[in-house]
Amino acid sequence: MKVGFIGLGNMGLPMAQNLLRAGHELTVYNRTRSRAERLGREGAYVADSPLDVALDVEMLITMLADDEAVEEVIFGVSNVKGAKARGVLHVLGSGAIHVSMSTISVRLSQRLAEMHVRSGQAYVAAPVFGRPEAAAEGKLWIVVAGPSDQIEKCRPLFEVMGQGVFVVGEAVAASNVVKLAGNFMIASMIETLGEAFALVRKSGVDAKQFLEIINGVVFKSLIYQDYGTRIIEERFAPAGFKLRLGLKDIKLALEAAEDISTPMPLVSVIRNQFVSAIACGHGEIDWVGLARVSPDNAGIDEGLRV
Amino acid sequence: MKVGFIGLGNMGLPMAQNLLRAGHELTVYNRTRSRAERLGREGAYVADSPLDVALDVEMLITMLADDEAVEEVIFGVSNVKGAKARGVLHVLGSGAIHVSMSTISVRLSQRLAEMHVRSGQAYVAAPVFGRPEAAAEGKLWIVVAGPSDQIEKCRPLFEVMGQGVFVVGEAVAASNVVKLAGNFMIASMIETLGEAFALVRKSGVDAKQFLEIINGVVFKSLIYQDYGTRIIEERFAPAGFKLRLGLKDIKLALEAAEDISTPMPLVSVIRNQFVSAIACGHGEIDWVGLARVSPDNAGIDEGLRV
Amino acid sequence: MKVGFIGLGNMGLPMAQNLLRAGHELTVYNRTRSRAERLGREGAYVADSPLDVALDVEMLITMLADDEAVEEVIFGVSNVKGAKARGVLHVLGSGAIHVSMSTISVRLSQRLAEMHVRSGQAYVAAPVFGRPEAAAEGKLWIVVAGPSDQIEKCRPLFEVMGQGVFVVGEAVAASNVVKLAGNFMIASMIETLGEAFALVRKSGVDAKQFLEIINGVVFKSLIYQDYGTRIIEERFAPAGFKLRLGLKDIKLALEAAEDISTPMPLVSVIRNQFVSAIACGHGEIDWVGLARVSPDNAGIDEGLRV
Amino acid sequence: MKVGFIGLGNMGLPMAQNLLRAGHELTVYNRTRSRAERLGREGAYVADSPLDVALDVEMLITMLADDEAVEEVIFGVSNVKGAKARGVLHVLGSGAIHVSMSTISVRLSQRLAEMHVRSGQAYVAAPVFGRPEAAAEGKLWIVVAGPSDQIEKCRPLFEVMGQGVFVVGEAVAASNVVKLAGNFMIASMIETLGEAFALVRKSGVDAKQFLEIINGVVFKSLIYQDYGTRIIEERFAPAGFKLRLGLKDIKLALEAAEDISTPMPLVSVIRNQFVSAIACGHGEIDWVGLARVSPDNAGIDEGLRV
Repeated sequence: MKVGFIGLGNMGLPMAQNLLRAGHELTVYNRTRSRAERLGREGAYVADSPLDVALDVEMLITMLADDEAVEEVIFGVSNVKGAKARGVLHVLGSGAIHVSMSTISVRLSQRLAEMHVRSGQAYVAAPVFGRPEAAAEGKLWIVVAGPSDQIEKCRPLFEVMGQGVFVVGEAVAASNVVKLAGNFMIASMIETLGEAFALVRKSGVDAKQFLEIINGVVFKSLIYQDYGTRIIEERFAPAGFKLRLGLKDIKLALEAAEDISTPMPLVSVIRNQFVSAIACGHGEIDWVGLARVSPDNAGIDEGLRV
Repeated sequence: MKVGFIGLGNMGLPMAQNLLRAGHELTVYNRTRSRAERLGREGAYVADSPLDVALDVEMLITMLADDEAVEEVIFGVSNVKGAKARGVLHVLGSGAIHVSMSTISVRLSQRLAEMHVRSGQAYVAAPVFGRPEAAAEGKLWIVVAGPSDQIEKCRPLFEVMGQGVFVVGEAVAASNVVKLAGNFMIASMIETLGEAFALVRKSGVDAKQFLEIINGVVFKSLIYQDYGTRIIEERFAPAGFKLRLGLKDIKLALEAAEDISTPMPLVSVIRNQFVSAIACGHGEIDWVGLARVSPDNAGIDEGLRV
Repeated sequence: MKVGFIGLGNMGLPMAQNLLRAGHELTVYNRTRSRAERLGREGAYVADSPLDVALDVEMLITMLADDEAVEEVIFGVSNVKGAKARGVLHVLGSGAIHVSMSTISVRLSQRLAEMHVRSGQAYVAAPVFGRPEAAAEGKLWIVVAGPSDQIEKCRPLFEVMGQGVFVVGEAVAASNVVKLAGNFMIASMIETLGEAFALVRKSGVDAKQFLEIINGVVFKSLIYQDYGTRIIEERFAPAGFKLRLGLKDIKLALEAAEDISTPMPLVSVIRNQFVSAIACGHGEIDWVGLARVSPDNAGIDEGLRV
Repeated sequence: MKVGFIGLGNMGLPMAQNLLRAGHELTVYNRTRSRAERLGREGAYVADSPLDVALDVEMLITMLADDEAVEEVIFGVSNVKGAKARGVLHVLGSGAIHVSMSTISVRLSQRLAEMHVRSGQAYVAAPVFGRPEAAAEGKLWIVVAGPSDQIEKCRPLFEVMGQGVFVVGEAVAASNVVKLAGNFMIASMIETLGEAFALVRKSGVDAKQFLEIINGVVFKSLIYQDYGTRIIEERFAPAGFKLRLGLKDIKLALEAAEDISTPMPLVSVIRNQFVSAIACGHGEIDWVGLARVSPDNAGIDEGLRV
């Protein structure tokens, strides 16, 4: 299949690489061109602009950092004079599918669905769970929403990039909400671990033993074990997922919840902890580092500063 | 061993039963005498009062609902005239061990340790993780703190009642804090599930599928699966652990944290949700029912009312 | 002076009226034309579009509901084909001043400042404190930021519309932040009153007497008296300032705080209360009605439902 | 009238002094005897123990720091052997009135009412609003609850100590709840000021000008002016009311609310801020210093540290 891929960051690069190695004809673009050229050496066509990618593909995958980046690529930008750099929307072929795989807002996803349809194209929302290592091994989990026939066309690509595909409905918002709710649940676990560790450590209990007990007895979960250990050992760098991006996702969850009038008090508290952590200069560490905010506020943890 | 057992509720009765069946000589007391008599028919001596239990035992186990009940049994009560019903503290033999196995406050545990030592006795704090079914099967997890020689004397009893014993230190507070921090972590998971379900359901996603995805992909934890399913299916009765007792434990966690100046913002929010749930008449349902507060506030969930 | 005025809602209409009556030459536009025509009958020129207003004025005042409305008017809109309805930015004369007087985001205000300068125009941020009655009497309080020479040009207009002008700096963000922080403080007072009333009423104290004590002794503030009484008497309609607009401002405050990494835990809680209130169908009542959320959660206040 | 007075702290000493100067026959007791002797030199009888005060008075006023101190004085204490130092309850004459004027819990106030009645005495709950200077000038505000005939007997004393007396009902809890709700409202104002100042200052606005605007335009309240200025000028010592005592009152408000199932989300957040402030070593500064917690978490305010 002729596939375009825009956004070759920590996640996008290995995802595109897997598509290339599986034999798909790939055109790639990345703002920092050197990352695209790494794929060029493996046989991908390196485009000069997003428009260049979009001109001749059946499927266009975006894996971009945030809403702004996606909007700029798809809808284009205006300058002061009112002139406009055209977006991919205006050149993507009729019948082509845009597959958005990064974590974007529900609102933008709905707008993309509407605009692509109006332009005679299709749109599938397909955010993923998994860290860069999972992307490299083709072991992502992909949560998909959109028109079923379009999803079926994408399935061969999903199977190369992921170990599992969950179709959650026709309305594209569904997959974005699942991703955001999932990230909230992980952030909540991190903050919960942080607060519990602060309490037990200040009471003289060894945090490692506490984790062993609570995970061994109650949760029996690898992610509790893994994240808990990294918090205790203060391994917050290099960042698999940066704390400031965690805040971005928590904000998108709050925004999505607000748009459907759903109060989420835990999310609000967690958002505050993220802002505190960033205010104290921790925006670039891994988001498990959020767990340091409570100990810091408890005034106990000089040793925890990275 | 000559063992006294006071408090034969949902947890205490099966725990005492296991001790009896393992061949220990048991004297039991319960405010509602009929529950004690069930053990009487299996060979336990049924005492008329806590003092009666304490007179001739090497080990006294308490499994009482809250701090007040423990204080009354151990320290006794005064009436208006200043007369005093004596507590167990004044009759328990020299060298006997009081093993407190219910969830009590850190403060009371520390006071018990001090008072028993002054009275020539010993004290071991040994709260448990596990629901009534685990108690019945002798599969509790027991978190123990106190003087090591005393703990060793208790070990044979612990091995009858539990499948694992964790010794967390000599200072008794350690085990109570571990129990309270653990219960906070479970309550946090419940509230997190409640908020996430409210968000995805209001967005048109099937909560069951969401749970399948998020637990299948991220948490891989039986307790997420079990509690999540009970929330979705609204199985909040009969209560394995009542919501109002959940509030009690969250308050004890807050109190313990405050005594050592540890701010815990998530705990505070969760406390509020418990109070809301109780205000709306849900104090007697199982504490997983806490997850209904968010949906209720979201104004969507008439169908969720039990 | 030749003045354009766009946005003739509850606040804008009386503000424009005062300018007209003070002898300024006014061109007005409002989406619902009938409101503009009321001013037409008093001598204003009623324009057919925002562009029409902007063509020949020295000063353009906007008093629009939210960021989206301002963006549409100033920057224009694109349609699917990439065609663009031009915004006021492209027709406003060189040297003209855009005075934004509604509550908009810090981000948008900064962007407006930048874009107007690039287009050879000037921009002054001048949000106001005061309800519609104050607008009618020319008794608003105006918080102004921007280049001092431009502010001086606007001063005669401000003096017609308001009873006081506060210049808070050259950086336009300053005035928007003051307005948002101020609205947060009012919302906080409302929620505080709501929670305090819930507590005392449920304890059998007459809320009116409580207000009399606490305001008479501690706060001695007319707004506490006025808002407190309206809460107690449940006068939430007609809305001087709608609850859902209150949420908008609280969100803008959170966003402004987040952009400069300032955690504001009270704001987060208040935001949640707004979302709860809206979820329960109270978005259109006056924002003092926020004070009903706590009583509702306390399960006591059937009588409070409007 | 023969009046006993126990507790001669910052508030109690000037209150007792005013009674003495108004001609009442005063017997006083204070743990630190030197403070009592200051009154001795003015004609008060200095007692050796609380019991000694209670033996021959018509009215007994307590102005003690917390619940524990009141319980010890009124109910007495037990030692390990079960021996008991008797409390005032057992010696206070039949028909005498205990007037509790410090801020104590609703629960303790209700228990005092019950126990005094059983002992043939009377109880009036009369907490006060006002700082030490107001106490010195006899300008406290006194919130009273209890049997009306008993309140009338106390009125001459109240009129010496205060400038206003509010009778809020027969049920003693009413006055304690009014006091606790009032202190919550003040704490909420402090935290609100702290968060608003953090936002505007980090945005480059002068906090003093912001206070001038917001108080001049919206609140028009002396306490906003006074507390706001002290926050801006960082005058947190000497403490008129210590931050750690503020936490005590917030906890009592939460406890009172919880006992009647009233969720108070703002109170919970404020409680956390108090715990954070104390964790960072600020327990002994004036409670307006709470307003520093937000700036500290915002990572901006080295200059604010006392």
